[in-house]
Amino acid sequence: MRLLATVFLLSVMCGTVLAWQASSTEAPPAYPEGYRHWVHVKSGLISPTHKSFASLGGFQHIYANAEAMAGYRTRTFPEGSIVVFEWLEMKDTAGAYEEGPRRQIDVMVKDSQRFAKIGGWGFQRFVKDSKTELAAAPTPQQCFACHDKLKKDGLILSSYRQ
Amino acid sequence: MRLLATVFLLSVMCGTVLAWQASSTEAPPAYPEGYRHWVHVKSGLISPTHKSFASLGGFQHIYANAEAMAGYRTRTFPEGSIVVFEWLEMKDTAGAYEEGPRRQIDVMVKDSQRFAKIGGWGFQRFVKDSKTELAAAPTPQQCFACHDKLKKDGLILSSYRQ
Repeated sequence: MRLLATVFLLSVMCGTVLAWQASSTEAPPAYPEGYRHWVHVKSGLISPTHKSFASLGGFQHIYANAEAMAGYRTRTFPEGSIVVFEWLEMKDTAGAYEEGPRRQIDVMVKDSQRFAKIGGWGFQRFVKDSKTELAAAPTPQQCFACHDKLKKDGLILSSYRQ
Repeated sequence: MRLLATVFLLSVMCGTVLAWQASSTEAPPAYPEGYRHWVHVKSGLISPTHKSFASLGGFQHIYANAEAMAGYRTRTFPEGSIVVFEWLEMKDTAGAYEEGPRRQIDVMVKDSQRFAKIGGWGFQRFVKDSKTELAAAPTPQQCFACHDKLKKDGLILSSYRQ
């Protein structure tokens, strides 16, 4: 009985440790290799007249993998959906804007188990063109809180532009 | 001999008629079905401060099919390459621009035989969301003349943004 009790106690502790690791380190979404060849969902732009131009100015493009495209059609995003929000600086030539360097990409990955505590979606931000350098803030919890507040369907706020 | 001469004469005439049809009606490029799922090459924007905003203002997106993507890599565009230049109006909300209705799409198709007289590329412009309504101008010859003047590689002026 002592052995069984010890095994039980250990398994509970391991479970706790694993759960803690999952929620604290969150095994964050990996870099979305090849996303530039995914479907272009839509775009936006923060222009020089916008109050946040200095920090956010430029083009915003959204890309979706095949699973996420199924979600854009049905508004129920299946497991494995990945959506990339790409931020680029811009260059203004007499009112004609061109794309500039990449500021960052924001990645959302649907995995209901792995990200159970933050709405079933993992969040990650990669700096400039880096596939490894991550932005310190916002945290996934902050991402989730804001998306949850603005909730549309499955935390994805955009719609596919036909 | 009279028969042979007549056949010869007819074949020459037919050849002339076919050649005339090819150059005058030009069997223009068809609507590029599914182009919104092709690779997004890059974007630009004509802003409210641009002199041509009234007629051209808004987002410009370029899409390429698989053959054209091979061309963007090698700068030699294979037969069957299709490039779509999409024009959208825009909406300005305190400096944040959103995509508006489609103005038109310009299509380029590589077919060296069919479009031999205009650099091997066919040109077509579809109005708004229509798959059949064509713009009256510019003519394919005008399109070719301008692209030829600005010539980069194979008349394609854009580059793929990584």
